[in-house]
Amino acid sequence: MAKTLTPEERATALADLPDWHAVDGRDAIARSFTFQNFNEAFGFMARVALVAEKMDHHPEWTNVYGKVDVVLMSHDAGGVTDRDIRLAAAMDRIAADFPM
Amino acid sequence: MAKTLTPEERATALADLPDWHAVDGRDAIARSFTFQNFNEAFGFMARVALVAEKMDHHPEWTNVYGKVDVVLMSHDAGGVTDRDIRLAAAMDRIAADFPM
Repeated sequence: MAKTLTPEERATALADLPDWHAVDGRDAIARSFTFQNFNEAFGFMARVALVAEKMDHHPEWTNVYGKVDVVLMSHDAGGVTDRDIRLAAAMDRIAADFPM
Repeated sequence: MAKTLTPEERATALADLPDWHAVDGRDAIARSFTFQNFNEAFGFMARVALVAEKMDHHPEWTNVYGKVDVVLMSHDAGGVTDRDIRLAAAMDRIAADFPM
């Protein structure tokens, strides 16, 4: 089982993920992505879904038309682990392929 | 623009959609779908996404692993319209293809 990051480790990791922030009241990180329409938002989600399934690590996410709100945490570890940081970075890379 | 359903029309429509319920405080309808895992949940979402895009009518939905929580309303009309009823019925039909 992955270990949750220490506050120092998490701060270092988030420094490389400036669009992500800590979630109030939960050991989790979050980001909102805004795309031009549903086609792009769901295209992003489909690409992320393949990565997430391969990692066996899945986001909590809400989609409304062109918007995708994501929360990441490792349920088995009870907080943010290296897997969340890697999935967050993958989501940023995939989102960068879309005009936002 | 589609017209919102009257309370009577909505009650009649929901009688044929027993797994859907009205949302407190909003003119919207909702249902939670529970699948066996992320593969099935996202497979369901992908099939619904194609239908929604074709209808040009999109859900508000949240996915956590095998769970998909859906809210439907017609933002342009400000409430539940016939399009929401048709999308809800389509989601029920698609979900029925999965072992739940």
